[in-house]
Amino acid sequence: MLKALIVGASGYAGAQLAFYLSKHPHIEIAGLTVSEKSADAGKLLSDFELHPQLKGLVDLPLLPMADYTAIIQDIDIVFLATEHSVSHDIAPYFLEQGCIVFDLSGAFRVNSLGFYTEFYGFNHQHQTWLDKAVYGLAEWNDKLIKHAQLIAVPGCYPTAAQLPLKPLIAEGLLDDTQWPVINAVSGVSGAGRKASLKNHFCEVSLHAYGLFSHRHQPEIATHLGQEVIFTPHLGSFKQGIHATITCRVKDGVTTDDILAALNKYYAHKPLVRVYQQGWPALKSVVGLPYCDIGFALKDRHLILISVEDNLLKGAAAQAVQCMNIRFGFDETTSLI
Amino acid sequence: MLKALIVGASGYAGAQLAFYLSKHPHIEIAGLTVSEKSADAGKLLSDFELHPQLKGLVDLPLLPMADYTAIIQDIDIVFLATEHSVSHDIAPYFLEQGCIVFDLSGAFRVNSLGFYTEFYGFNHQHQTWLDKAVYGLAEWNDKLIKHAQLIAVPGCYPTAAQLPLKPLIAEGLLDDTQWPVINAVSGVSGAGRKASLKNHFCEVSLHAYGLFSHRHQPEIATHLGQEVIFTPHLGSFKQGIHATITCRVKDGVTTDDILAALNKYYAHKPLVRVYQQGWPALKSVVGLPYCDIGFALKDRHLILISVEDNLLKGAAAQAVQCMNIRFGFDETTSLI
Amino acid sequence: MLKALIVGASGYAGAQLAFYLSKHPHIEIAGLTVSEKSADAGKLLSDFELHPQLKGLVDLPLLPMADYTAIIQDIDIVFLATEHSVSHDIAPYFLEQGCIVFDLSGAFRVNSLGFYTEFYGFNHQHQTWLDKAVYGLAEWNDKLIKHAQLIAVPGCYPTAAQLPLKPLIAEGLLDDTQWPVINAVSGVSGAGRKASLKNHFCEVSLHAYGLFSHRHQPEIATHLGQEVIFTPHLGSFKQGIHATITCRVKDGVTTDDILAALNKYYAHKPLVRVYQQGWPALKSVVGLPYCDIGFALKDRHLILISVEDNLLKGAAAQAVQCMNIRFGFDETTSLI
Amino acid sequence: MLKALIVGASGYAGAQLAFYLSKHPHIEIAGLTVSEKSADAGKLLSDFELHPQLKGLVDLPLLPMADYTAIIQDIDIVFLATEHSVSHDIAPYFLEQGCIVFDLSGAFRVNSLGFYTEFYGFNHQHQTWLDKAVYGLAEWNDKLIKHAQLIAVPGCYPTAAQLPLKPLIAEGLLDDTQWPVINAVSGVSGAGRKASLKNHFCEVSLHAYGLFSHRHQPEIATHLGQEVIFTPHLGSFKQGIHATITCRVKDGVTTDDILAALNKYYAHKPLVRVYQQGWPALKSVVGLPYCDIGFALKDRHLILISVEDNLLKGAAAQAVQCMNIRFGFDETTSLI
Repeated sequence: MLKALIVGASGYAGAQLAFYLSKHPHIEIAGLTVSEKSADAGKLLSDFELHPQLKGLVDLPLLPMADYTAIIQDIDIVFLATEHSVSHDIAPYFLEQGCIVFDLSGAFRVNSLGFYTEFYGFNHQHQTWLDKAVYGLAEWNDKLIKHAQLIAVPGCYPTAAQLPLKPLIAEGLLDDTQWPVINAVSGVSGAGRKASLKNHFCEVSLHAYGLFSHRHQPEIATHLGQEVIFTPHLGSFKQGIHATITCRVKDGVTTDDILAALNKYYAHKPLVRVYQQGWPALKSVVGLPYCDIGFALKDRHLILISVEDNLLKGAAAQAVQCMNIRFGFDETTSLI
Repeated sequence: MLKALIVGASGYAGAQLAFYLSKHPHIEIAGLTVSEKSADAGKLLSDFELHPQLKGLVDLPLLPMADYTAIIQDIDIVFLATEHSVSHDIAPYFLEQGCIVFDLSGAFRVNSLGFYTEFYGFNHQHQTWLDKAVYGLAEWNDKLIKHAQLIAVPGCYPTAAQLPLKPLIAEGLLDDTQWPVINAVSGVSGAGRKASLKNHFCEVSLHAYGLFSHRHQPEIATHLGQEVIFTPHLGSFKQGIHATITCRVKDGVTTDDILAALNKYYAHKPLVRVYQQGWPALKSVVGLPYCDIGFALKDRHLILISVEDNLLKGAAAQAVQCMNIRFGFDETTSLI
Repeated sequence: MLKALIVGASGYAGAQLAFYLSKHPHIEIAGLTVSEKSADAGKLLSDFELHPQLKGLVDLPLLPMADYTAIIQDIDIVFLATEHSVSHDIAPYFLEQGCIVFDLSGAFRVNSLGFYTEFYGFNHQHQTWLDKAVYGLAEWNDKLIKHAQLIAVPGCYPTAAQLPLKPLIAEGLLDDTQWPVINAVSGVSGAGRKASLKNHFCEVSLHAYGLFSHRHQPEIATHLGQEVIFTPHLGSFKQGIHATITCRVKDGVTTDDILAALNKYYAHKPLVRVYQQGWPALKSVVGLPYCDIGFALKDRHLILISVEDNLLKGAAAQAVQCMNIRFGFDETTSLI
Repeated sequence: MLKALIVGASGYAGAQLAFYLSKHPHIEIAGLTVSEKSADAGKLLSDFELHPQLKGLVDLPLLPMADYTAIIQDIDIVFLATEHSVSHDIAPYFLEQGCIVFDLSGAFRVNSLGFYTEFYGFNHQHQTWLDKAVYGLAEWNDKLIKHAQLIAVPGCYPTAAQLPLKPLIAEGLLDDTQWPVINAVSGVSGAGRKASLKNHFCEVSLHAYGLFSHRHQPEIATHLGQEVIFTPHLGSFKQGIHATITCRVKDGVTTDDILAALNKYYAHKPLVRVYQQGWPALKSVVGLPYCDIGFALKDRHLILISVEDNLLKGAAAQAVQCMNIRFGFDETTSLI
């Protein structure tokens, strides 16, 4: 049994990680931590005011990190479900202890110091770890993940955006002179579990935000190797991301070419489901670890549809998938 | 034209009041105030981050109360859409200036000093105004409202609970040895526009709260003259209250008796709609100023169903209705 | 008082029309009709199983058309809130009687017989009326509407799509070699009040549909004079449309140019609201007759956001707006 | 491996059963059936228009029952997720073949022929099987379930209503002269997957229905041995039941007595979770197989709160739980 620590376990992704790990046959949860200032410190994760759905499943206490420093050398795996700047600050400590770190924040996703200054508002101090970090887009980087110490689990939008596009780019089917237009709608959980007027029940309604300025745009462009126009939206639902990607294919590309490209990369991948017919709806993936992909082609216009649960394939499930790959377990262990 | 000031205009009830008053042929909005510390001070009520639905309808600024003190003698009417303790503190000032005050908070609803200490957490200082305040349950207290200077607009739950029960009590149809069981479900707007984890979009789901301890229970019991068991619930919708009231009638009471009692008091009241058949659903009243009432009787068991929009008949619309009654306008002016 | 008949009054748009007309100072509702086979025939529109929200507001019966044939010569105005093929079949009858007809269906929106065969599945028989029909995009065709006998009220998506684009095209700001990408999400009411698995509460979740094949694409392209890529989506909400339009401007076009174009055409139009700052959210317009427009420009990429209530500015409100224009009433009479 | 057939697999409970059984280590799905007239016959359960969430998980075809008659002697277990009258008609056939039958309909829940005539609208023909049927309230009837051939899985409301009340009745804590008042709100999935205006997305809003006439009232009363007042409501959510039960305890009963009674019966039951503090919310159980119970006592007034997922503990999960008990598997196998 490998021992895993979840840092930032009281948030939505953290609680979901705890749920997955609690069912995992090869993992033992060594601890769940919250910030020392958190009002949740000392409570059970399954407290009736926290995550009561986990009652009987993960009745472990949320404790400050200090409670675990004495046993840090016994911990094999650390999941960071923390704010970007917190991950940035604490990841090196765990890495230096020899832990394998899965960071769900954006702190190690793009190997560019300027990127953090511009989009995350802090100066990145750990170029060495940026160089070593592997981007955990599981279906594409599994070979690197197997040997990585620091896995930067992709953002929710970037996962939904890249999975449908990468096979087409890899196969040279896209007309890369025209930037793909990515419109995506995320559930409210994407903004985290912190109270704010923006996620007040009565204030939420479908709307676009972060036009031309969302930090996931450069993350997508970097790992895709292709500029894109990315417009995020908030939808009035709890979980899920629906992405509609309009792009242009090269002259002569057919529906069969698209389908062949998607199948080439995903037919044997258990957590990406390609639709031969129809287009996926959000409900197909809510609560499940999949990314579902469909498309339609007319002349040289291609529309790709992808859906995922932002907290699962877009966060916790992909983190566990990366862990499974890293340690040689079956890729879907504890996920389905 | 009468001049009206809305204190606490940035909340849900306050904004709705502003909308109603902006359409009222006999009212001019003299000002909209917010707390001096509010980040909204200086913005338009219709600002895109506040109440953009009012753009073009109520493009007035939110200003601290201090901006209006110089003109207070010109103001005829004050609506207090403020926290209970704030209403308590400031109502006397306006009253002493001769304004007619419609208070949407609970600060003057029950003439009992102990009630405020126990249920609202402050010691009430204004017994004189408590004595003079008229409880603004519009269909029942219109004669008193016509001559009142301080109208305490009822709470949302108490309106939905009392309107169906009062005719039956007035006609002596209820077996008063058995307490009516009032289960009511409110939309999230009932908790106000302040960010908190309780109204986080992802945290809201149907649940009971305040069992045996909600402040609306004694308000209902006081004005009904009948003890009740009141259990409030939060529902996953923005606006509306649905109340299910289970009670016991006296031996021999028939369906016709119930219907006759409801019609006796409401057939000529424009904002209470009695169903001869079927039961009202929440959608019947959302966005509208009505309270709809239906019922079913079996043996001596009576179930009353009432629905209203908590922000309208349960707050802003009833306040305007009281104002219309107070000044002799048609009761529904600007409401439908 | 002008006498108006609403054909197909039991649907969502029809009921909304009845509500608006009931408040209109210059209109008398002459009748509400439903199909002779309808189970609703004989019921009140405000029946508790139909539109109980209208109880006390529009307590008129739904009757078969045959009940009105004797008085058809007294009817001035007919609203057709009917299926496309039904509008096609019956509009000429009313037109020949001299009625002014506002058709909310798609039967007379595009002057091309082939369009109906391909996208609506029937062969259009009334070329003469197609030639005479005026497309009721109110802000753009008011001069024509004033003298029209047959007004084809635009579809919900086409209204949301065209209003932001038309000023830019009119001012020559768009790079028309690149087709605008229109992604729009509609509430479920857009599919009408007929029970089907597609609008079953538990089946609805955000998803794209009608890729490259929705009938509103050619309607948009025709009246815009510009090809577009239009992708409709169903969202899990009752009312509203949110459109995100990604397009390319000509070299040198600035934010001020865009704003100036929008203001040139809409600053004096009461039902289109242009945002100088921020982007509109769906909640800004639900229940209201507006179309709200915002935008962002970066380099030559322009994103336009428009929102409207699909049943109001996208259907019933625009129909009433057209009627107000046609008869010289204030454009917003009974709407706000 | 035991072979199981699911009859009526295309509905919500049927699809959920298929999901649970697909993960069960001791069960092999022998077949999924739908009515011969069903348009779904021949499709995969995971078809994109049916239950696409099951793609890759249960890619089995839906076939008419006739396809399985040749292998019926090889089938060990039959789940009936069918209409009440269909279960009534076909259950004896499977029972006579020696199958163990878990019926999710109401056809065998109450041993009274008159009950079916009055509440289900058909004359029950199988008194013998009614006599042999065991009511599958798993926490209470496990000893009988172990030896039963026909298990009548309880209704969703009856499960939520009985689980909190039975311990108090068993311990003699309730004042049985006063009928418990059970108000419950169910998600829309409770009405099944058939399109109707009642479950149209735009028609659903919180409302009471079936006052004094719902078939679950006599089911509850029969198995509780206590008359009750039961008022069902439809809520605007997909899955879940929230029940609020107001009752009267005997003189002298304390909070500790209530808690002790609940713990006595449930402390060792894995699928009932008793709250020592706070009250459960719907979100605690949606997607999970639990029934959560909380309460509050004041004087002799007791309010019990229970929540469950109507499709899981209220249907499919309890059916699998019964199967696990019947065959000696761990009670929660494949459920958590």
